[in-house]
Amino acid sequence: MTYRPPIDDILFLLREVIGADSILARPEFAHVDPESLEAAVRQAGRVASDIVAPMNAPADRIGATLENGVVRLPPGFVEAYEAFCDGGWPGLALPEEYGGQAMPEIAQAALSEMSNGASLAFSMLPVCGRAAVRVLLAHAEPDTQALWVPKLASGEWSGTIVMTEPHAGSDIGQARTKAVPQADGSYALTGTKIFISFGDHDATPQNAHIVLARIEGAPEGVRGLSLFLVPRVTMEADGTFGPRNAIAASRIEEKMGIHGSPTCEMRLDGATGYLLGEPERGIQNMFTMINTMRLEVALEGVGIAGAALDKAARYASERVQGGSGGAATAIVEHADIRRTLLRMKALTGGARALCYETAALLDRGRSEEAGFLLPICKAVASEIAVEVASLAIQVHGGHGYISEHGVEQLMRDARITPIYEGTNGIQAVDLLLRKIGRDDARTLSLLCERVEGDLEPAAGGEIGDAVAAGLGEWRRVSSLLLERMAADVNQGLSGATPYLRLAGTVLMGWMWLRMAVAAKDDEYGDEIRTVARFYAADIMPEVDTLARRALVPGELLYTLDSERVARV
Amino acid sequence: MTYRPPIDDILFLLREVIGADSILARPEFAHVDPESLEAAVRQAGRVASDIVAPMNAPADRIGATLENGVVRLPPGFVEAYEAFCDGGWPGLALPEEYGGQAMPEIAQAALSEMSNGASLAFSMLPVCGRAAVRVLLAHAEPDTQALWVPKLASGEWSGTIVMTEPHAGSDIGQARTKAVPQADGSYALTGTKIFISFGDHDATPQNAHIVLARIEGAPEGVRGLSLFLVPRVTMEADGTFGPRNAIAASRIEEKMGIHGSPTCEMRLDGATGYLLGEPERGIQNMFTMINTMRLEVALEGVGIAGAALDKAARYASERVQGGSGGAATAIVEHADIRRTLLRMKALTGGARALCYETAALLDRGRSEEAGFLLPICKAVASEIAVEVASLAIQVHGGHGYISEHGVEQLMRDARITPIYEGTNGIQAVDLLLRKIGRDDARTLSLLCERVEGDLEPAAGGEIGDAVAAGLGEWRRVSSLLLERMAADVNQGLSGATPYLRLAGTVLMGWMWLRMAVAAKDDEYGDEIRTVARFYAADIMPEVDTLARRALVPGELLYTLDSERVARV
Repeated sequence: MTYRPPIDDILFLLREVIGADSILARPEFAHVDPESLEAAVRQAGRVASDIVAPMNAPADRIGATLENGVVRLPPGFVEAYEAFCDGGWPGLALPEEYGGQAMPEIAQAALSEMSNGASLAFSMLPVCGRAAVRVLLAHAEPDTQALWVPKLASGEWSGTIVMTEPHAGSDIGQARTKAVPQADGSYALTGTKIFISFGDHDATPQNAHIVLARIEGAPEGVRGLSLFLVPRVTMEADGTFGPRNAIAASRIEEKMGIHGSPTCEMRLDGATGYLLGEPERGIQNMFTMINTMRLEVALEGVGIAGAALDKAARYASERVQGGSGGAATAIVEHADIRRTLLRMKALTGGARALCYETAALLDRGRSEEAGFLLPICKAVASEIAVEVASLAIQVHGGHGYISEHGVEQLMRDARITPIYEGTNGIQAVDLLLRKIGRDDARTLSLLCERVEGDLEPAAGGEIGDAVAAGLGEWRRVSSLLLERMAADVNQGLSGATPYLRLAGTVLMGWMWLRMAVAAKDDEYGDEIRTVARFYAADIMPEVDTLARRALVPGELLYTLDSERVARV
Repeated sequence: MTYRPPIDDILFLLREVIGADSILARPEFAHVDPESLEAAVRQAGRVASDIVAPMNAPADRIGATLENGVVRLPPGFVEAYEAFCDGGWPGLALPEEYGGQAMPEIAQAALSEMSNGASLAFSMLPVCGRAAVRVLLAHAEPDTQALWVPKLASGEWSGTIVMTEPHAGSDIGQARTKAVPQADGSYALTGTKIFISFGDHDATPQNAHIVLARIEGAPEGVRGLSLFLVPRVTMEADGTFGPRNAIAASRIEEKMGIHGSPTCEMRLDGATGYLLGEPERGIQNMFTMINTMRLEVALEGVGIAGAALDKAARYASERVQGGSGGAATAIVEHADIRRTLLRMKALTGGARALCYETAALLDRGRSEEAGFLLPICKAVASEIAVEVASLAIQVHGGHGYISEHGVEQLMRDARITPIYEGTNGIQAVDLLLRKIGRDDARTLSLLCERVEGDLEPAAGGEIGDAVAAGLGEWRRVSSLLLERMAADVNQGLSGATPYLRLAGTVLMGWMWLRMAVAAKDDEYGDEIRTVARFYAADIMPEVDTLARRALVPGELLYTLDSERVARV
């Protein structure tokens, strides 16, 4: 169950497409030179293939277990995590003052992609830690930061994000967990939370639970929520551990995949918590890490898609079966398998490039553009992950359906990514309502102009023509949906999901155009140009279908009353 | 984990769309009247919901086990199977002279769909028995038929289809299992077979293994294979059991889903077998049941899609979360959820109707048309099953990814259907190469004329217009691919997979047109017409994309050499 990290593709993107050198030239990255960035990427690849990948299949088979209120991670997990921390990887892109390496987001993107490709279940643990760090750096008091952040940056302690409740998923405003002020300035939190990744585990002795709860007497709804730091183990101000806090896993969920990542129901029974930031600003303060998490989930999609492509490509070159016309050959020679592998390459490469472009925008401080692209990256990369993993199964035939090759695990693991950290439907509404509607389409125009600017050299051949046509459709559909939204918000939003995919399809085409233009005159360059042509021929035509789907009149969706829609 | 069988939809199709009455008017169905057909459908629905559905989730969780060379089915399986047999369901469409009820294929289709919707893993056992009966009725000697078929028709004994070997999947000609003639006219078979569904199990005391093997000295390749009946337990001519035959399960596979259905590696170690039909006609004789199996797998897809729709619809009407604009409502009110449910309805209903139409063609003896539609039904319905199950997960959000609601199991179970009984890539090649190319497109023309004939009343509104446009694209792409195939078979076949889906999309549109025209002026009719409009608006546009994908020049697929295609 080996994992071969896509080092060549990542380095090509960083060097030739998204302009890593100009990012490293910024003063905040004065301590990083191109060689150390490349070395970090190569070393991250070795960590993924040598340390993370070997535990992935056993962790899936055995899963995490809950025994006497304590979650045990599957065999091999803790050892892999310790090796990961020994290499300093949890703090790769965190500030140096807290023990991090302060590398740019593009380096973290490469690490995340490869670690996710090796094992999504594993990689979710450091993600939770990084998310907690973001929240603490933005909203905690300095002494809290000094106590917690270095331990989180080293991976010695871990973090969790504790939002969802049984009746409060996408609609988090229904959360009922209560926080009662205590005499010492802390709060006593009581309630039940669900779907908490790594809510409890035995890889670290301490856990920073970042919990959304409602202070007694605060208003109902999303505006009444506040954010708290709830330690797994109570601590003195100097970090000395006291007894366990009154927060514990009461169940772990049976689920489709990511069995190595315990999904916990957490009971808080008067647990001691500390307010983070202002009261009743919980949602706004939580948004500090929403961008981080969206990019992380997008890179989970890219990582899984890349791993699925790797397995399928190897199998196709090794598996010998007859062609339609005579002598048996490796199945990579069969037209249908080639078509499938090219589609997998085109989707995976496009999603990867768009995610790294977004990471680069974050590094350049262009947060409006990055914020626009993030819901697209999250939704598109996660959908691509499921499709590419499914295609990888298909390439393997019956051998893909059995567990032996690890490819069915990839599809099961991938299937969470369109759901968590905001379902893709939520991402689509966010894009259309907030990132476009509430911005008067300024960032949209800016990005369309960037795409247009890259069309001017007319160097792209088929992919250039296809992107030009796609861009026209994107603009046309955007205008029409904005008009509809102006008349009736829900009428416009009814096209949100196909609209997001349309935007993503055009933007991935743009990235393939940029890759094709940047590709050198060598064998790798030939491959890039061919896959770009295939993207233009096989995938860009989806834009027309998506445009028509995005413009399906909202009334059609509401012609039937709910009982008929939900009838079976 | 209840299952609500879609009785209304099935009865509407049978009565109003595919013309069950005219099938029952045929002399071979003189013993069946419309009331008894309807009663059988309703009773089959109760069997699915009351007997089959309850064992599905536990069977998935526990799975089949191999102990001391004997496979044990999970708890509840054997009891459910016995109840299923007590009701006479295994023989519903088998001849009366062997104890069957000789119902038409449309009745079997309804039973299969609902049984599959309740539990795919369960339903695979009777499918294997029916497939074995088809082979035996076509190729066995009368005394063999007399001994075996009544026991298979009652379900007292079961069947298996034993084809695949580790190096011989789609390329079955590489099979190495040897058959050595014995003095008594039997053969001794030796070899290893894989992916044998219900290769061993404890639900029946006897098993008819239908085995492909090569008689010693026969030519290499697919032409040298013969078909054998290999009993699990040796028998006297009068049916008295002797010792176990030398065929046994040596392993059961860990796999993505259908855990209740043991997928066995079978070792034959000089097992006694009996030639079925002529020697070296094994493949041709096996084709006797290929049509049966394709329709069965298509109905697996329809069954799972229907079950997924059922679960999603119920969840959407019960789950209350905020809308974009204010007060919390059932999520079925949200535009994105409605869009999703309508897509699930449009795909499921279209695939169901096309499968029942195909079953009706079989009942009418129109085997050319049915043969044309079968690879389309198999591939399209199986792809739809995976998509609809995935959409059902998405409707459930995080609750869909955990096992509790049973919807993630549907997606895991569904994922086998595009693979087995000929991968969908094989179906696509079969359609284009054999059903169209080798038939000089006669059946294609016939079907296109039928579609055209249904357009003439112009009664369909949007769906009529969309089908008219789609039919034009289908004819255009067919001509172009046939031209390409005439020049270079592989050039044409490189478009086979999108071509099949294009044909299926148009044909499902045709079925929605027929349903819309047949629908009455009542609430159910309004629903049918609305979903037909949605099919026209949301799904028919895919035809254009599929046309462009089908026509991607074959050279583009072969621009890169294999090493580059398979590089990661």
